Amino acid sequence: MRTIVHMTADSVSRPSRRHDPDRRERIIDSCLDVIAEHGVAGTSHRRVAAAAGVPLGSMTYHFTGMDELLREAFGRFAREIASTFERRLSAASSPTDARKAVVDLITEDVFGTERDVVLTHELYTLAARDERYRELTSEWMSRSRVELERHFDPLTARMLDALIEGLTIHRALDVVAHDPQVAREAVERIVGRTA
Amino acid sequence: MRTIVHMTADSVSRPSRRHDPDRRERIIDSCLDVIAEHGVAGTSHRRVAAAAGVPLGSMTYHFTGMDELLREAFGRFAREIASTFERRLSAASSPTDARKAVVDLITEDVFGTERDVVLTHELYTLAARDERYRELTSEWMSRSRVELERHFDPLTARMLDALIEGLTIHRALDVVAHDPQVAREAVERIVGRTA
Repeated sequence: MRTIVHMTADSVSRPSRRHDPDRRERIIDSCLDVIAEHGVAGTSHRRVAAAAGVPLGSMTYHFTGMDELLREAFGRFAREIASTFERRLSAASSPTDARKAVVDLITEDVFGTERDVVLTHELYTLAARDERYRELTSEWMSRSRVELERHFDPLTARMLDALIEGLTIHRALDVVAHDPQVAREAVERIVGRTA
Repeated sequence: MRTIVHMTADSVSRPSRRHDPDRRERIIDSCLDVIAEHGVAGTSHRRVAAAAGVPLGSMTYHFTGMDELLREAFGRFAREIASTFERRLSAASSPTDARKAVVDLITEDVFGTERDVVLTHELYTLAARDERYRELTSEWMSRSRVELERHFDPLTARMLDALIEGLTIHRALDVVAHDPQVAREAVERIVGRTA
């Protein structure tokens, strides 16, 4: 299979896998671009290959199918968002800082771009339809909670994670601007009793 | 246009509009069924007409296009969910009842079916992609908050609405069961200070 793929006419004009070690990574990144533009329903091997600038044969060489590709792509996306949680929360060195970090996640980081809003909801819709993808969303939630547990007990971390989710979704899907004071006050109320 | 539609051969074998006054309503309901099964991306006039058991011509007779149909369908869905909020919250007659009503919404009502989870996320994804649909999500949020404001001040209602959203999404998209105690405790913390 390797030989066949690398002997296609298409590969002649492009760097071979030997000289293109990042090809698999690039396909995964391009898959996220295609999902953002066309949705999961409109994501095909052909579209992703075109976006990544790789021959169609590369898709079956690197991935067992669309399922593996979607998992890899959404897994990467979820890790990127989780790393934002890590940056914010690892930088906080006092309870006051930690609360501010949560507020900043809500008001500045989560859904900071239209692309993030779209990709998150594409993943959620996929997971809502097919429970096999709930491993991804479940893992994502665990990761966020672990970061929150740097500063808060597990119960409080779980509540804060839900609060972050709800406030950011409501802001993203509303037609009017949201007052950041709501996030500050809500975090105070959730954390208050345990402080 | 009316005359033309009703003179198609198709309408001969089916009840005419005169004897089928609920046709438009039935198309809207069927549209939700089709979205639940195929997603917004897979929803076509043809599929909805087949699901509703109406001739394809009925679609253009009753709706200016897919956009109007999607709006009507998701508008109906959002009103159904909002009526659950109304039932729960109008039945509460004390602050303790009101808190319990919010907990019941989280643990029993919202996302009570797979269909609700799927339809909600289909709408959210649509609204994430196309801000014109945010009128629908925005209106839905306003309606939920108005119901919550029967018992809580506007700021608390907004926080509770976000909490309901976050906790129910996290439960729906997780692979492990969620302890209802988290909802009870979170509602207590959010409402506590204002009680």
